[in-house]
Amino acid sequence: MPGRLITLEGIDNSGKTTHAKRLSNYLKKKGYQVLSVRDPGGTEISEKIRKILLDKQNSLAASSELFLYLAARQQLVSEIISPALKKNKFVICDRYCDSTLAYQGYGRGLNISLVDNILKSFFPVPDLTILIDLPVLKAQKRFGSNRPDRLEKEKFAFHQKVRQGYLEIAKKNRQRVRLVEGTGNPAKTWEQVRKIVDNFISRS
Amino acid sequence: MPGRLITLEGIDNSGKTTHAKRLSNYLKKKGYQVLSVRDPGGTEISEKIRKILLDKQNSLAASSELFLYLAARQQLVSEIISPALKKNKFVICDRYCDSTLAYQGYGRGLNISLVDNILKSFFPVPDLTILIDLPVLKAQKRFGSNRPDRLEKEKFAFHQKVRQGYLEIAKKNRQRVRLVEGTGNPAKTWEQVRKIVDNFISRS
Repeated sequence: MPGRLITLEGIDNSGKTTHAKRLSNYLKKKGYQVLSVRDPGGTEISEKIRKILLDKQNSLAASSELFLYLAARQQLVSEIISPALKKNKFVICDRYCDSTLAYQGYGRGLNISLVDNILKSFFPVPDLTILIDLPVLKAQKRFGSNRPDRLEKEKFAFHQKVRQGYLEIAKKNRQRVRLVEGTGNPAKTWEQVRKIVDNFISRS
Repeated sequence: MPGRLITLEGIDNSGKTTHAKRLSNYLKKKGYQVLSVRDPGGTEISEKIRKILLDKQNSLAASSELFLYLAARQQLVSEIISPALKKNKFVICDRYCDSTLAYQGYGRGLNISLVDNILKSFFPVPDLTILIDLPVLKAQKRFGSNRPDRLEKEKFAFHQKVRQGYLEIAKKNRQRVRLVEGTGNPAKTWEQVRKIVDNFISRS
């Protein structure tokens, strides 16, 4: 069994991290060697970059943010993901290139085809991407905020663009990106994820 | 008089920083508003990125290094350079996009045309670039090391590629990039820089 890169994507609070963990346990129980990572992160350098990203979100230029995400990911790919794939492992990645296209491209308004071209030139393409989709309002309600303030409204418009971006990406990459309905309870969402992965394994 | 971006380029120890300072003083005495910056650096975020770059030089993936330089520069352009150009200032920048092409492209072996395309898509092109050229051995001798060890020999080969890269860039951009002979004493080099800049000002 050759190595496989599976990525989980979606807006904040879509349940990516939960299902990435479930998927990792599921595959381990099936006897596969599994490596789980989150992007940005996973290496000493990437975590330092992550810190700048989270700390400076408001004062970062959109394209500076873009390049920091790319730098963190390159280091993660080079130190962790590529070596694991060479050892025939399943690599499960919580966020990856589609996040960049959805957030920095569709969300922040950077040139989509330019960003897409950079991503394709520098990063290995995932074998399977699971996109957990749900309405932004439902995802935000998981935070428990009921009366949105100005900043939250701005955030809403931004995440709305990100969600639409993800749906565009899914349309353009039907072979690779599988859509999962993330509104219901986690068990129902997991059932969809599991079926997609079972199907993916049986095909490969 | 509209704003003008002048960059100084060259291998390590070529005298860029010295001549950037001289140039700044020279233009100030002529009555121009001048802003001097170094790349990477110049903003809080860029200095943090610079720290990762200098600290982690040996363990950084080549393309991670590339993206960190680009992130630092974007922030410098967006916070400092673009606003100064809009205020009609002369901006003198110690290293800029050509450093990326010479070091990460020609030096580290990343795809030249891909890197060049990213640079052209994201950054304002300088109005004038002064490339201070001298043989790598002469530049290294300024450090005072006479018996090179293994690491220094590796460094020599690397900087040799960087120098050749710079000369290629100059050939391809004759209008923008002006070559200055950096071997002699600093006064002679400065005389060349001054003439180029005088000529540039009288043309613009």
